[in-house]
Amino acid sequence: MSIGISVFGSGRIGVIHARNVARAAGARIVSIMNPNRALAKPLAEELGVPVVASAQEALCDPAVHAVIICTPTSTHVDLIEQVARAGRAIMCEKPLDLAIERVDRAMAVLEETGVPFMLSFNRRFDPGVAALRSAVEAGEVGDLNMLSLTSRDPAPPPIAYVRQSGGYFADSTIHDIDLACWITGELPAEVYATGSCLVDPAIGAEGDCDTAMSILKMLSGVLVHINNSRRAVYGFDQRIEAFGSGGMVQTANQHNDNVLRSGADGFARQSPLKHFFLERYEASFALALKEFVSAVREGRAPSATQRDGRNALIIARACEKSRSTGQAVRPRF
Amino acid sequence: MSIGISVFGSGRIGVIHARNVARAAGARIVSIMNPNRALAKPLAEELGVPVVASAQEALCDPAVHAVIICTPTSTHVDLIEQVARAGRAIMCEKPLDLAIERVDRAMAVLEETGVPFMLSFNRRFDPGVAALRSAVEAGEVGDLNMLSLTSRDPAPPPIAYVRQSGGYFADSTIHDIDLACWITGELPAEVYATGSCLVDPAIGAEGDCDTAMSILKMLSGVLVHINNSRRAVYGFDQRIEAFGSGGMVQTANQHNDNVLRSGADGFARQSPLKHFFLERYEASFALALKEFVSAVREGRAPSATQRDGRNALIIARACEKSRSTGQAVRPRF
Amino acid sequence: MSIGISVFGSGRIGVIHARNVARAAGARIVSIMNPNRALAKPLAEELGVPVVASAQEALCDPAVHAVIICTPTSTHVDLIEQVARAGRAIMCEKPLDLAIERVDRAMAVLEETGVPFMLSFNRRFDPGVAALRSAVEAGEVGDLNMLSLTSRDPAPPPIAYVRQSGGYFADSTIHDIDLACWITGELPAEVYATGSCLVDPAIGAEGDCDTAMSILKMLSGVLVHINNSRRAVYGFDQRIEAFGSGGMVQTANQHNDNVLRSGADGFARQSPLKHFFLERYEASFALALKEFVSAVREGRAPSATQRDGRNALIIARACEKSRSTGQAVRPRF
Amino acid sequence: MSIGISVFGSGRIGVIHARNVARAAGARIVSIMNPNRALAKPLAEELGVPVVASAQEALCDPAVHAVIICTPTSTHVDLIEQVARAGRAIMCEKPLDLAIERVDRAMAVLEETGVPFMLSFNRRFDPGVAALRSAVEAGEVGDLNMLSLTSRDPAPPPIAYVRQSGGYFADSTIHDIDLACWITGELPAEVYATGSCLVDPAIGAEGDCDTAMSILKMLSGVLVHINNSRRAVYGFDQRIEAFGSGGMVQTANQHNDNVLRSGADGFARQSPLKHFFLERYEASFALALKEFVSAVREGRAPSATQRDGRNALIIARACEKSRSTGQAVRPRF
Repeated sequence: MSIGISVFGSGRIGVIHARNVARAAGARIVSIMNPNRALAKPLAEELGVPVVASAQEALCDPAVHAVIICTPTSTHVDLIEQVARAGRAIMCEKPLDLAIERVDRAMAVLEETGVPFMLSFNRRFDPGVAALRSAVEAGEVGDLNMLSLTSRDPAPPPIAYVRQSGGYFADSTIHDIDLACWITGELPAEVYATGSCLVDPAIGAEGDCDTAMSILKMLSGVLVHINNSRRAVYGFDQRIEAFGSGGMVQTANQHNDNVLRSGADGFARQSPLKHFFLERYEASFALALKEFVSAVREGRAPSATQRDGRNALIIARACEKSRSTGQAVRPRF
Repeated sequence: MSIGISVFGSGRIGVIHARNVARAAGARIVSIMNPNRALAKPLAEELGVPVVASAQEALCDPAVHAVIICTPTSTHVDLIEQVARAGRAIMCEKPLDLAIERVDRAMAVLEETGVPFMLSFNRRFDPGVAALRSAVEAGEVGDLNMLSLTSRDPAPPPIAYVRQSGGYFADSTIHDIDLACWITGELPAEVYATGSCLVDPAIGAEGDCDTAMSILKMLSGVLVHINNSRRAVYGFDQRIEAFGSGGMVQTANQHNDNVLRSGADGFARQSPLKHFFLERYEASFALALKEFVSAVREGRAPSATQRDGRNALIIARACEKSRSTGQAVRPRF
Repeated sequence: MSIGISVFGSGRIGVIHARNVARAAGARIVSIMNPNRALAKPLAEELGVPVVASAQEALCDPAVHAVIICTPTSTHVDLIEQVARAGRAIMCEKPLDLAIERVDRAMAVLEETGVPFMLSFNRRFDPGVAALRSAVEAGEVGDLNMLSLTSRDPAPPPIAYVRQSGGYFADSTIHDIDLACWITGELPAEVYATGSCLVDPAIGAEGDCDTAMSILKMLSGVLVHINNSRRAVYGFDQRIEAFGSGGMVQTANQHNDNVLRSGADGFARQSPLKHFFLERYEASFALALKEFVSAVREGRAPSATQRDGRNALIIARACEKSRSTGQAVRPRF
Repeated sequence: MSIGISVFGSGRIGVIHARNVARAAGARIVSIMNPNRALAKPLAEELGVPVVASAQEALCDPAVHAVIICTPTSTHVDLIEQVARAGRAIMCEKPLDLAIERVDRAMAVLEETGVPFMLSFNRRFDPGVAALRSAVEAGEVGDLNMLSLTSRDPAPPPIAYVRQSGGYFADSTIHDIDLACWITGELPAEVYATGSCLVDPAIGAEGDCDTAMSILKMLSGVLVHINNSRRAVYGFDQRIEAFGSGGMVQTANQHNDNVLRSGADGFARQSPLKHFFLERYEASFALALKEFVSAVREGRAPSATQRDGRNALIIARACEKSRSTGQAVRPRF
């Protein structure tokens, strides 16, 4: 039997999830939910499903076995509560919420209802990232000593986005934080982060930074470095390097094609990088959905949990606090 | 309106085409044809379509607007004739036939009936190959001077396959020959080829070779080199290099993932190559189908024609003749 | 006229300097100084020069225009004072001393006497490092935003070496610190460093670390990351990455040869890295000497000064303090 | 005792050899020979040795134990005869001569006199080339199946040079031919070559080509491909690929530095290639001299012989004949 799914939200990420559901084995798209029906209409028509205007309306349909929440962050916790109480499985875009108290409320409801829940840390499902983590787990680098994550966006977002983002660490570094914890298999004992505003002065005017470096000292002593920038003119720069007693494993960037060009201006230059997360992590969204559908069908917990999301948020908040105080912070989980 | 397609044959390639049709926009799978119905059953059930036992049976169905022929080579010409006379569009696996006279018969029927016809030179549709050709066309290497194609299989085929293959040049080099003509935009004035049996003595016992090098001197003087091997222990090695007055463009091999490993045994070694043509050229099969469907819908000729197939076969035959005589051959088209 | 040089010390680095002097244009080797004459004899015989047993003896010879000091760190300041008061130019191995007060005494004498002085920060003279810095200076990365330095030794030193090294930051990170200040052209406002003992427990037993990460926030807001390990089984890993508003420049590791190997165990793996600093930075020692000789001949200050050495030591001490207190430190210069 | 060497000729190559002799362990430069003394004067002064105006004058000096011949090709055989009869060891630039009969005369004299003789096939001594050949010899590619050599000059020579060059194959391809025989350890049974004039019409007007491809089928069946161009706008392109039953070994091009640049116009483009043979093969000239000096000192035959030169010339002539007749040629050695 295939899992019927309603997608809540029809923005950039909603479109990806809805199309992936329509293509996925073992799942089918049942409805698109958007309080502003007109916004969801093109997507719903493309996929041949109805638009519903509320969670309640979506959940009335017994064909809806699961919900993917891609609405604005501020609505996540309320929707999780509503969907969980209706007994449906949930995949939710990160972050759960920007406030730990509200995250805790969602976690309480999820624990109470016991519905399957997956947080969409899609980068874990990128084939290169997953291969690096498998290599680390399989001992290919021996004992892990250091992990470095580089994550730089091609261009800064509009300032309106920055304003409601929860700050650079909670908005962007959180992806790297989750990967750091997932790859090392542990949590940080101490966090230090610092940031500068070197890309867009308007970001600095909001009290936020656009260029950041963090160090996480994990409980075992493994050291993690994360560097982020809101602008890399050569494209979306996404690299991870795991280093240990037995060697090193690195993920390389991905290009639009595998063609090398040589001319009077240089030898063997590669094609441009895949533009941004929609292109670079295209496969990972589909693979994350596949994991969610499998988990729901098999009645098991998906591999990226609300606990992971809570931990990442606490660490991101510790980074933010470290940046503002200039001191290292010991996060409490 | 979507194009209804019947896939003739349900072997390795038939499975690919049938699944791609099932996924493609603008097309839908109508039936699978196999005289041995049992062989086609699993595929037909997977896709929810009926098995038919003959071309005639398939063509009775008015929902079939086009046919993809993936049956054994010896059946291609007769099937083309039958389908063309029934007025349906055709995509046919290469080669059309191993004998020029039979190819000419198919071409006469196709000309007479005027049905859209596409030869499945799928490698043209590989994104890297297509990007290289576009770069050459756009003048990125200036005037083209030399083209080199490396095409090495991971492991030799069973000897039974070799026996009915038409020889190494007509079976395998023909792909590189087609790409050479397509990328340079011209035909060879002179062809030299030589081969050795260095991989499997059983191949030599059949009078065939498993290690081959060819040079095509095109009409304009552009020089083309092709090298082929039936065995590359490091995987399916597929590279093209275009060189000219303004520079060079090269396609790189594709790996299972973009992870680099460094250890006591070496620095930055890449992951294994994509295993063989099903994996390496996966995208190209889907893109070739897309071109066929678009051409049929738009009522235009597809971009890889029976003429291209005939030319490639003549050149492959000239290579074979050059190998056996030890002399260069001037092919006549 | 060529500059006559006496090399003080005949250990690993003394041998390099003495041989380089013997080969250098514009300089000639005059004597080797070692209180234990027997230790210096083989080198002196190889180069055909006398051994002298003290600085005094070396400086009696009017043919000695300059001295290169490669004796143990604890002797540097006294020797600098003696040589400077004798009016000879000095090139001195880093560090000047492990105590700032003694560094200040050396600086006072150097200022008083005005003799040309160069600190042997040889890595600045590595062609790749120099090319990266030139690219940054020339604006090839636009405004610099982030700088990352990876410096990992192939294997940990004997514990006796660690004991007298002054700690990991003053012994090893100091090279990266100097490069960071030299490439960015500025000093850090704030320094954070942390370390773990993951390589050799004996190092931890000394209170030192063997795996370290540092962040330097420069006065302009540019962020610098340094990571160090006492052990990289794949070899001496030396990479720098400069990132800015206009792009990125990276130095790549250097291999024993430029040969790529592909086999059943992987595709295109590179040869081993150049083993350690004597091999990797071979050219840089000769180029540093060239700069020193040129500066002495032209009567100008060499490009790596005692001030640079003092700054780097202060920053290394700040890293050490940050590691032990777990807090960021604002160094005072 | 060090070997006293007189360098005959003071052109581009003469300068390299003379300077290398001056720097080499175990050898010293004694004189520079040039009938036009004025041309040799700057080099002689730089090295502090006299100019002599004739071979006779050079050979009068008993301090001359060996001669390096870097005069125009047409003078090689006469000089070899003169020097050999004077009992001195000889290193001679390639080719020995453009006519086989004259090569045979030189060989007869060398056999008669028994003086040590080395032909300056310097590329064999390039560290990358030597590593590739060692890997092949050590069985790293299993049984060798195919060898490909790419050799493209940055820019065409003046037409006056082309006129006296002996043709593209004898002038340039001969280097690749020698490497092919040296790496495979055998001679070709059959040779096919073709060429076009695509770079400079003036070269075609001389009956020569500037773009060439050759295939050598070795006696064992191993296939060799060589491609040459007189112009590669991205620089001196020198690559070799050895492929066999156990894998592949490739030499990579060499760059001015190991710096990668990424910007809005592309990711990770490498620095320009080393400009031409003086830069690219700088090390190989010194290493070839080292081999010559060692062989003379040890009284053994150097590793690149007159026989190797004769074989390469015969093969180059066979390529030329194949190009002009359009037919494969079976060379006779």
